[in-house]
Amino acid sequence: MAKTIGVIIDYLTDDYRRQIDAAAAKHGYAARYFPDSRSAVGNADDCEILFGHCSQKVIASARNLKWFCCCWAGVDRFCKDELYQNPDCLLSNSSGAYGVTIAEHLVMVSLMLLRRQMEYDALMRSRGWDTLAGNIRSLRDCRITVLGTGDIGAEFARRARAFAPAKLIGVRRSAKAGDPAFDETRTTAELDALLPETDLLVMALPNTPETAGILSRARLALLPRGAFVVNVGRGAAVDQDALIDALNGGHLAGAALDVVEPEPLPADHPLRDAKNLLLTPHVAGNTTLPYTQRKTVDMFLEDLENYVSGKPLKHVVDRKRFY
Amino acid sequence: MAKTIGVIIDYLTDDYRRQIDAAAAKHGYAARYFPDSRSAVGNADDCEILFGHCSQKVIASARNLKWFCCCWAGVDRFCKDELYQNPDCLLSNSSGAYGVTIAEHLVMVSLMLLRRQMEYDALMRSRGWDTLAGNIRSLRDCRITVLGTGDIGAEFARRARAFAPAKLIGVRRSAKAGDPAFDETRTTAELDALLPETDLLVMALPNTPETAGILSRARLALLPRGAFVVNVGRGAAVDQDALIDALNGGHLAGAALDVVEPEPLPADHPLRDAKNLLLTPHVAGNTTLPYTQRKTVDMFLEDLENYVSGKPLKHVVDRKRFY
Repeated sequence: MAKTIGVIIDYLTDDYRRQIDAAAAKHGYAARYFPDSRSAVGNADDCEILFGHCSQKVIASARNLKWFCCCWAGVDRFCKDELYQNPDCLLSNSSGAYGVTIAEHLVMVSLMLLRRQMEYDALMRSRGWDTLAGNIRSLRDCRITVLGTGDIGAEFARRARAFAPAKLIGVRRSAKAGDPAFDETRTTAELDALLPETDLLVMALPNTPETAGILSRARLALLPRGAFVVNVGRGAAVDQDALIDALNGGHLAGAALDVVEPEPLPADHPLRDAKNLLLTPHVAGNTTLPYTQRKTVDMFLEDLENYVSGKPLKHVVDRKRFY
Repeated sequence: MAKTIGVIIDYLTDDYRRQIDAAAAKHGYAARYFPDSRSAVGNADDCEILFGHCSQKVIASARNLKWFCCCWAGVDRFCKDELYQNPDCLLSNSSGAYGVTIAEHLVMVSLMLLRRQMEYDALMRSRGWDTLAGNIRSLRDCRITVLGTGDIGAEFARRARAFAPAKLIGVRRSAKAGDPAFDETRTTAELDALLPETDLLVMALPNTPETAGILSRARLALLPRGAFVVNVGRGAAVDQDALIDALNGGHLAGAALDVVEPEPLPADHPLRDAKNLLLTPHVAGNTTLPYTQRKTVDMFLEDLENYVSGKPLKHVVDRKRFY
């Protein structure tokens, strides 16, 4: 069987195609482009490698797959062993391609919450012109806790630092040395002690059994009155009913969710009407940003070199850890 | 006549009052608090000093005024000689108190424009859930030109730098050495050459005869198709009719105006319906931010020491230059 790389990316350009073709040919592969996952299901048996936005069905149907390089950063749904016909199939993700755009989203929504931009937008839509009663707030002097100190958390911290926050603490699973972008790095075990001193809680966690429900009702109650919550990881990390109560009851001053359960969020879901909730449709890691597109392709090309020379993949995922 | 300091600030707290009283008493003054400008008109003859949000009428009526310390940064309407009964009356402003909050506004609205947040907000209001067709953009690799390199422009540049823009150029009136926050500082004479290489034009200029209409129809046309304009200085700096045309015609991808002509903006003004225009009601330098309030009081107390000891005021305004 010919050595084939199956490619399914929705932002394919002639340039990317040329680069992928050249890299494939260099190592005796042919690249085969599918317009979408649907067209690839059952037709990818010749693919030793798959790159891109592949559905679970494509992966499950690819009998000779040895490596799936996923264009997304969050790969929780690709971590089940039973998905793969070949138990040793490698999985890599594109963590590292999304830090820039998600960090920009995080700064944007944090400022929108602190500055009450949703209320000002509503005032402008009603064709008014006024300064709202009550205070706005600032990233300056804000105590920020970032749950998740990977690419996204660290890129956010690098930008947030320029706003001179009072504290910028990263929280991670293990006690490994943290990214210097943070003032301090703590472990998840210390989270309960940190929450009462957090004005802005930023969540950028992968979806794993450990992170599911991590922002529980009890932990929301530990945040000081008037705090803000922002989540760009996975919706499952937050107890959404408790969040709605905390917003509508005034314990939280606002929240911004780019990820929810379920997605797409039904039109009549109670999150849609929660007070001071800034909702975006899972677009923080927006692959319509050319920078992100470029980066995912570069990361694949880099790991293709590793793959063909038998070196470990730089962006490999430990399927047992989910990231 | 008793030496009196008249105070009109709408965010007066007991703390601020105590500090102002103590500083006044130290130098043989009494502080007198007016709830608003209206109550002070015609009643401020005992005031040698006025501090705060005074209307032009208060200033014009204060017969013995020697120093007006204004709580705002923009003092163009207090620069006419005929306003003052005493031609040598000193004027100082609170430029320096607003950089932090206006810089945060600038980063917020710039990201909202680049990331098409107004369209996403509209999608969420219609209870949808989708990724918009077409690209978003990023501050990374963005060519930013900042018109006005004072406190506001420089504080913005310090924050924008953390986002790794391709270029960050400050433009100022004179060729004096620029703030190190900028990659380069150029003069207004070079503006026309800079505009064709500007993706994001940020305007933070005082209102002077030189800055009125500086963003003319001809200059808007020099910006590349798809550029963005943000203005937090004064509305008069922009040819608003030309801006509306550039937005509705698609030459500009978006604009954010916190200042317009006139203010308040009438409910039926065509700016209200311009395409991709993010409008805010002159709240970028929001004095509902406690940090800003603290800073204006501190700046007054600092200059009070200078005033009583006959030193030049640190925040003095040259009424001929308007800043």
